Amino acid sequence: MVKPIVVGIIGAGRIGRLHAHNLRVMPSFTLKSIAEAVVSEDLLAWAESRGLGPVFVEAEDILNDPEIEAVFICTPTDTHATWIERAARAGKHIFCEKPISLSPQQTSRALQIAEEAGVLLQVGFNRRMDPSFRKLKQLVQSGELGSPHIVKITSRDPQPPGEAYVRSSGGMFMDMTIHDFDMARYLMGEEVVEVYTRGANLVDPMFGRCEDVDTAVITLTFASGAICVIDNSRKAVYGYDQRVEVFGSLGSATADNCRPTTVEVSTAASVTRDQPLHFFLERYNQAFTDEVAAFAQAVRLQEPIICSGIDGQQAERIAEAAKESHRTGLPVKLQHGSPTA
Amino acid sequence: MVKPIVVGIIGAGRIGRLHAHNLRVMPSFTLKSIAEAVVSEDLLAWAESRGLGPVFVEAEDILNDPEIEAVFICTPTDTHATWIERAARAGKHIFCEKPISLSPQQTSRALQIAEEAGVLLQVGFNRRMDPSFRKLKQLVQSGELGSPHIVKITSRDPQPPGEAYVRSSGGMFMDMTIHDFDMARYLMGEEVVEVYTRGANLVDPMFGRCEDVDTAVITLTFASGAICVIDNSRKAVYGYDQRVEVFGSLGSATADNCRPTTVEVSTAASVTRDQPLHFFLERYNQAFTDEVAAFAQAVRLQEPIICSGIDGQQAERIAEAAKESHRTGLPVKLQHGSPTA
Amino acid sequence: MVKPIVVGIIGAGRIGRLHAHNLRVMPSFTLKSIAEAVVSEDLLAWAESRGLGPVFVEAEDILNDPEIEAVFICTPTDTHATWIERAARAGKHIFCEKPISLSPQQTSRALQIAEEAGVLLQVGFNRRMDPSFRKLKQLVQSGELGSPHIVKITSRDPQPPGEAYVRSSGGMFMDMTIHDFDMARYLMGEEVVEVYTRGANLVDPMFGRCEDVDTAVITLTFASGAICVIDNSRKAVYGYDQRVEVFGSLGSATADNCRPTTVEVSTAASVTRDQPLHFFLERYNQAFTDEVAAFAQAVRLQEPIICSGIDGQQAERIAEAAKESHRTGLPVKLQHGSPTA
Amino acid sequence: MVKPIVVGIIGAGRIGRLHAHNLRVMPSFTLKSIAEAVVSEDLLAWAESRGLGPVFVEAEDILNDPEIEAVFICTPTDTHATWIERAARAGKHIFCEKPISLSPQQTSRALQIAEEAGVLLQVGFNRRMDPSFRKLKQLVQSGELGSPHIVKITSRDPQPPGEAYVRSSGGMFMDMTIHDFDMARYLMGEEVVEVYTRGANLVDPMFGRCEDVDTAVITLTFASGAICVIDNSRKAVYGYDQRVEVFGSLGSATADNCRPTTVEVSTAASVTRDQPLHFFLERYNQAFTDEVAAFAQAVRLQEPIICSGIDGQQAERIAEAAKESHRTGLPVKLQHGSPTA
Repeated sequence: MVKPIVVGIIGAGRIGRLHAHNLRVMPSFTLKSIAEAVVSEDLLAWAESRGLGPVFVEAEDILNDPEIEAVFICTPTDTHATWIERAARAGKHIFCEKPISLSPQQTSRALQIAEEAGVLLQVGFNRRMDPSFRKLKQLVQSGELGSPHIVKITSRDPQPPGEAYVRSSGGMFMDMTIHDFDMARYLMGEEVVEVYTRGANLVDPMFGRCEDVDTAVITLTFASGAICVIDNSRKAVYGYDQRVEVFGSLGSATADNCRPTTVEVSTAASVTRDQPLHFFLERYNQAFTDEVAAFAQAVRLQEPIICSGIDGQQAERIAEAAKESHRTGLPVKLQHGSPTA
Repeated sequence: MVKPIVVGIIGAGRIGRLHAHNLRVMPSFTLKSIAEAVVSEDLLAWAESRGLGPVFVEAEDILNDPEIEAVFICTPTDTHATWIERAARAGKHIFCEKPISLSPQQTSRALQIAEEAGVLLQVGFNRRMDPSFRKLKQLVQSGELGSPHIVKITSRDPQPPGEAYVRSSGGMFMDMTIHDFDMARYLMGEEVVEVYTRGANLVDPMFGRCEDVDTAVITLTFASGAICVIDNSRKAVYGYDQRVEVFGSLGSATADNCRPTTVEVSTAASVTRDQPLHFFLERYNQAFTDEVAAFAQAVRLQEPIICSGIDGQQAERIAEAAKESHRTGLPVKLQHGSPTA
Repeated sequence: MVKPIVVGIIGAGRIGRLHAHNLRVMPSFTLKSIAEAVVSEDLLAWAESRGLGPVFVEAEDILNDPEIEAVFICTPTDTHATWIERAARAGKHIFCEKPISLSPQQTSRALQIAEEAGVLLQVGFNRRMDPSFRKLKQLVQSGELGSPHIVKITSRDPQPPGEAYVRSSGGMFMDMTIHDFDMARYLMGEEVVEVYTRGANLVDPMFGRCEDVDTAVITLTFASGAICVIDNSRKAVYGYDQRVEVFGSLGSATADNCRPTTVEVSTAASVTRDQPLHFFLERYNQAFTDEVAAFAQAVRLQEPIICSGIDGQQAERIAEAAKESHRTGLPVKLQHGSPTA
Repeated sequence: MVKPIVVGIIGAGRIGRLHAHNLRVMPSFTLKSIAEAVVSEDLLAWAESRGLGPVFVEAEDILNDPEIEAVFICTPTDTHATWIERAARAGKHIFCEKPISLSPQQTSRALQIAEEAGVLLQVGFNRRMDPSFRKLKQLVQSGELGSPHIVKITSRDPQPPGEAYVRSSGGMFMDMTIHDFDMARYLMGEEVVEVYTRGANLVDPMFGRCEDVDTAVITLTFASGAICVIDNSRKAVYGYDQRVEVFGSLGSATADNCRPTTVEVSTAASVTRDQPLHFFLERYNQAFTDEVAAFAQAVRLQEPIICSGIDGQQAERIAEAAKESHRTGLPVKLQHGSPTA
């Protein structure tokens, strides 16, 4: 049996707790420590309910703990890059939530330091591990669909975040669409060369006040000529709408929404079925576990990282281009020689 | 009982025969004459099998026949406008296949002459009458979906046309996407203010030789800020792919493909169901009849034309803009005060 | 071109009119005469709207008309057998609605006379021609499903008929389930050897007053050991529920309901799609035309009758057995060497 | 926070290990001990991979351990009743896999002893906790479907068990259909008064040699007149087929199969989607956890047992009746005043 990886988590917000919840029962990991600025009553109760024991320490202690091999960075976005640098210098392997940073310079620097330190860095684009999207990827890779010509990604949240979140989010393209940019690159296996954004403020004037959009259609052009179109909304009243389609020269494959049950009810009034699984914790429940399992395989078995720092950086670059296209109303070209897995 | 409308058909190619096949059994119509340049053996056999009797005459005879009230123009596209003008001057109501012409000037002139002559003019965007798309329209009009934010139209042909057809077609946007431009206006009930086209030649180099595309994603922006995205391919190997989605502030509605049967087969190898209905004659079979029935109601009962000359003209304008956007690589703005029904 | 078959229709109720509506536009047929006891204003208006002209005659005139080759018997059930005998003696080919009679003796006699007269007799089990059920039959015949082990038929009407109809119907098994008995034989291609009925009166006490049931599950055992189960209700509030499944050693195939559109609507309240097509005229619209086209092929091209008098008789025998099983509460064995197509 | 329930598991075969796997991460439970006749290398490796530590003891030790409050009985069927009796006498609450025994007398005795001992006894009909079937139950209970008239249960295994298993299983009705008998009672909330079985040996002659069937349709009649029909096969080549439908006076609800992904692939050859989740461990994964969570709530919070000893006993009675009906070829009546939750 392979020795479990001893890990520490920095940041015990929603996503940090999610990883802790999963790690504690995965045989590949031993969750030793969690760092959180303020250890509230609520946090302690949560830890007790998970049987976590006395895990709370200072972030410094995690970096200094020689037993800890890997760090999960689950802090607010604007501190990700700094923690990557510090963890890398401490020789820890790194699992970092997306995005790496809101600044291209910061992201570059963080990647460079991680590379120099020789540590593994995985970025948390969990949707790559969603069973349906993985199957799409396999269909593309196997050639069953032929050359991909069109990729369509629908990604709509069930309800908008609050104003404070929006103001610090980096904007919809960096906060929400970034997942779709990564999905497009992941499925196509090649780089985006041009971005055209058509954004709008139709859901709530608050987004306009924050100089953000809440509705958008983004067209990505790939080097091969293939085209990807993403449609986003911050508010789909019927739930979390997450669908992907890959259309190629030999066939097409669609991944539909997941629903809590398969029940269909027919009455005199209507024929109904369930709304989609409510939000990302439910819909990507399996993916959150599987991305961490893949991280373990990369650390222990030298398997390739399923979503590297470069992948994180490229998605950020596309998001920057999407913002610029929205600002100028014109398509924006992207140039980069960075290969994608 | 309302008196049947006596009609003549000019042009007995595929679409002319289709209308003749339908008209002969509709109580609202009496099909009296058909004009076709060359009355072949094949055409005579077809007419006999439909019990049509001695219907073949010169086009002139149709226009000069005082008993004939309405004319169906089913000739090649480049003659539509001329026939509209001649039929209008002869005082006939007109059902004309799309597009009206490949030239904005010709289209304008034909509309003007028809208006001056006081005849009704219906353009054959038959998809407006497809039962599923009509239901989408009703959902939008009833307000059940709230304000429309995003419209998505997938329109892919099962196989590409031949090179001769492509060369005379006016290009994919004018020949194929024009249906989708009309669908977008029909569903939204407002005008397009900007068009961005991303086209590619991925299916067959022949399209490139004809300076045409075979694959495209087109983004339409509406005056309200709503966004429509259309994706097209000249070759969907699995069949005729015709799907539409309207996403609004209060809900979303999708119209899926139609299939010959509802049978699903599960074996050790796979779970399969039918491919989509093969092509437009099958898929829009009902719509072809219903658009003609609506024309009868407009002629006899003064109901509004379901797709007017203006509708035909607006779709052509969008197609022109799409071509220009493809040529320049930039979004193209549209200006027109013309209202849509 | 093959010469059209000149036909007369005896009985111009709902089903007689349906056949007339279809026959008048089918090139294989010339509908010459219709006999109906009372030619009402309503009937005349209906005929005018279909452009039928002066078709109404006495039934005798149809039988005596040497030009008429085939007769459609669309009278009330209790006169079917008599009309079969008279038409057969007049040398007419016969299309007769189901059932042939409510009495085994009458049915036998009618079949015998038709056979002696050498005329073709087709019974109107139209569902055999439903595109989905035909596909099931083809899957069974091709061996793709292996040996059939279980057949499941769901057949539920959207609303119960009136008391007068129920009293003269011969009971639910003879009136409604008889279609399902025929479907079971058609799909299996072999004979039923035992019937067990579990019936109930749950929808409306009226059925109980008429000594009939409104809800039933009927188990049929075939000679091969394969089992068919039929479930019926006289009232499915959500519409006409018509589904069939064939489960075999190599796979299973299901035929689902047909719906008016493919639209799915997702709102904050629900995700809905259309109810099934409302009733048999809509659901089996295509089948009604196709069964008549098949009759033309049998008359003109000597193709086998798709549903013979023997098929009609066998379904009646199963219905009789189902009634007896319901009465006694015990399974009932069937013995007959009659082969099925 | 509620104190965890300390449990021991007797029997570490497939199902015992499944419960151990789930219990070890549920905060409501502390899994202290597992008894298995032979603690193999394989079993030790499995335990290590789950981080279970030194849990293996003699079954006696579990019963004698005053800290252990509840026992999970996961031994072969023929020892369930004995272990229930011993655990009850030791004052342990009991979770027992189905069936309680293969003998009505043994089952009665075990229930009586558990009742006298005042311990809770839950029977492992896990399907009651399947999210889709729970939703059906809620729809029945809420009255949304009106009075249930027909319940249809399809339950087909992906592949037959081996001969040794079949010989000791008590026969298909007791081993496999028993789940469906429980589902019928669970959904209807009332008792079965008559059973008619039509069984066959169509899958493999081995079942015939074991005097068992591999294919069956079973009709259950309820006191209210409602009818349930179950169809079973030991071999559905396309996978584990588990569907339920409840048809009532106000509507119908269906629960379809669950599949690994939502991907649909359309090619020139076919349109395919995933086969059903392979077998019970996958399909009822959630249900296995939820039934145990419900057990915890019954033990700690005095909530009603979701599947009692009486429920287990009633399903066995129906299975006995089904066997007798198969043997005699006649319907079998059931008499029992025992109410169902």
